[in-house]
Amino acid sequence: MTNFSFSYGTKILFGKGQEAEVGRETAAHSRKVLLHYGQGSIRKSGLYDRVCRSLREAGVQFAELGGVVPNPRLGLVRQGIELCRKEKIDFILAVGGGSVIDSAKAISIGVPYAGDVWDFFTRKATVRSALPVGVVLTIPAAGSESSIGMVVTKEEGLYKRDVVDEIVRPRFAILDPQLTLKLPARDTANGVADMLAHILERYFTKEPGVDLTDRLCEAAMQGVMRTALLLAGEPENYDYRAQIMWAGTIAHNDFLSLGRVGDWGSHMIEHELSAIYDVAHGAGLSVIFPAWMRYLYRKEVQRFAQFAVRVFGLPMDFEHPEATALAGIRRLEAFFRQLGLPVTLGELGVPTDRLEEMARKCTERGPIGSFASLGEKEVLAIYRLAAETAGRG
Amino acid sequence: MTNFSFSYGTKILFGKGQEAEVGRETAAHSRKVLLHYGQGSIRKSGLYDRVCRSLREAGVQFAELGGVVPNPRLGLVRQGIELCRKEKIDFILAVGGGSVIDSAKAISIGVPYAGDVWDFFTRKATVRSALPVGVVLTIPAAGSESSIGMVVTKEEGLYKRDVVDEIVRPRFAILDPQLTLKLPARDTANGVADMLAHILERYFTKEPGVDLTDRLCEAAMQGVMRTALLLAGEPENYDYRAQIMWAGTIAHNDFLSLGRVGDWGSHMIEHELSAIYDVAHGAGLSVIFPAWMRYLYRKEVQRFAQFAVRVFGLPMDFEHPEATALAGIRRLEAFFRQLGLPVTLGELGVPTDRLEEMARKCTERGPIGSFASLGEKEVLAIYRLAAETAGRG
Repeated sequence: MTNFSFSYGTKILFGKGQEAEVGRETAAHSRKVLLHYGQGSIRKSGLYDRVCRSLREAGVQFAELGGVVPNPRLGLVRQGIELCRKEKIDFILAVGGGSVIDSAKAISIGVPYAGDVWDFFTRKATVRSALPVGVVLTIPAAGSESSIGMVVTKEEGLYKRDVVDEIVRPRFAILDPQLTLKLPARDTANGVADMLAHILERYFTKEPGVDLTDRLCEAAMQGVMRTALLLAGEPENYDYRAQIMWAGTIAHNDFLSLGRVGDWGSHMIEHELSAIYDVAHGAGLSVIFPAWMRYLYRKEVQRFAQFAVRVFGLPMDFEHPEATALAGIRRLEAFFRQLGLPVTLGELGVPTDRLEEMARKCTERGPIGSFASLGEKEVLAIYRLAAETAGRG
Repeated sequence: MTNFSFSYGTKILFGKGQEAEVGRETAAHSRKVLLHYGQGSIRKSGLYDRVCRSLREAGVQFAELGGVVPNPRLGLVRQGIELCRKEKIDFILAVGGGSVIDSAKAISIGVPYAGDVWDFFTRKATVRSALPVGVVLTIPAAGSESSIGMVVTKEEGLYKRDVVDEIVRPRFAILDPQLTLKLPARDTANGVADMLAHILERYFTKEPGVDLTDRLCEAAMQGVMRTALLLAGEPENYDYRAQIMWAGTIAHNDFLSLGRVGDWGSHMIEHELSAIYDVAHGAGLSVIFPAWMRYLYRKEVQRFAQFAVRVFGLPMDFEHPEATALAGIRRLEAFFRQLGLPVTLGELGVPTDRLEEMARKCTERGPIGSFASLGEKEVLAIYRLAAETAGRG
């Protein structure tokens, strides 16, 4: 177990009708804010009107910036930074899913920085200050509502890069599962893949003496998968929506992984996919994670067998532990398939002609991953495994 | 799943050597503090000197109040309140286990209150403000280092009562597992019983739609029991100590139980025992919890069977689910026994001549418990079950 320092600065307001608190919570931080959102779904649902009313009633003035797209773009982030500076705004309220929140976080670190905000993503600069951010969450998936990270795509060159810093953890996050009752099955499934991947990245660690958090991760994965399947049959069940929403938060707020060192290779391998082909991050992960597992399981048989036995209840084959390990990977793929998610590049609609380019870009800052350190050659092998269809049935 | 609001205001500093940060962390809040501790074990271990040095180096002045005993007393709390007022102290640093921290929290709410601090414990008054509290933890057990509660014993009448309020959650908690390497087996076992009981109180709920947190609770209980048994054979293993220490914190910081309603009847039933007989809280719980379970399992067979199957991996007897439920209770008792903990009042050294008095005091403010609402008669029946020895072997 590693040493750690942990401050969970996000106030969580969870449950029915909690978005009515957004004005009061925002006013506690600022009276002049940027209202940041996506492509208009919050207008159709009526959430936009309710949030605006709550802000006005609390005496909060706001400028607006909509238009965030999945895999949020640097261009809009730069617009947001300019807008905040011009209007002397000192708080950003993100109303939406992970992309909107990540975009808000990127704006929040850009406003007080004299240089170009992309400097933080290339590691040319280190974050020193940020505007505070608040969240009304509409899509449970990325966990960004209380995480310390963000991911943004730079249009020129199609680079998708992250910044991770405690300073960007939102000050409050309003989670009303009712806002997700009508979420399409595809978005729900993508979110489930994303939160499972967040737990898996933490689960695969070389750190010894972490049985307690191993078990918490396993329990969370079991809970997510069980509820996701029930939800597929009953999409407007509040309790299922509530558990999936909360699972997305705890999958990425670090609580399940304190004292561990996660891997994060699969996320970096996936980012190259969604940077170039603009696929949903969750769908990219349901392809890449099993491929990463298939590439590694023979070298790390015990951990993959533990995953199979503890998460899926598969019987341990003590004579052939690698068979148990592989059976666990197949079960994960079967779960993704059951939710209608792709598990091969072909199913994701991604061709195989740029795999070398993606492997090179993915490793241009050095090897990736901690559980397994992977260079260009290894990453390319994983992309190729992701392209294979044999044995996935 | 219930609505909830959650703010985890405790900064956790976990790991080897983290107590060196105590001066810096304290100075961030105050330059004039009360150093509160127990009966001198921190002097023998050298921790006292290290803490004092760190405070002085950070420019923090401090008054001292030692002498906290297990089941901390109101008398010393009142002394602490007077001392803080006299010395114009505005921060309390607790160095010790749950009793020291609870005593510090009680002082913290008493200082700004014009009346008698016991008013909060009798619900005559509601907490409105409190001095901030910081913690260096030496005994993993009560979880008070980042919880919102405290329990204090009033000497006159031997009343042991609690106050629960978000305002008393400590500002920081320093957890160095090395400080616990020499902790005697009995103290370790008492702590394990306490943290298991904290999870069990949360686990037994009537709230529907909480599968995710059910699983997190089950995982945490499995992790605690597995590590406690390993630790008994290898008491100076750092990784085992680290996992038990962290388990004590998460057992009681509410993270495992957000969206649930816990029971807490067993804690109230135990408090009457330790108020009168001054037994260790953990040892009292290892007697009372199984008795509470034996009293209830036939009425709530499914939940007790789930406990048996999921926590202990027992086979479900679909023809006789109550047999599975009872087998789970027996396994819990066997676990306590393996750690040398008592599971009957006789083993705890408590006679049976005041059971009626305890049942009356326990319920004098009305029925207790949420999973099961228990009046005086039911509580007495549980004390009597706790006195039985038959069938416990």
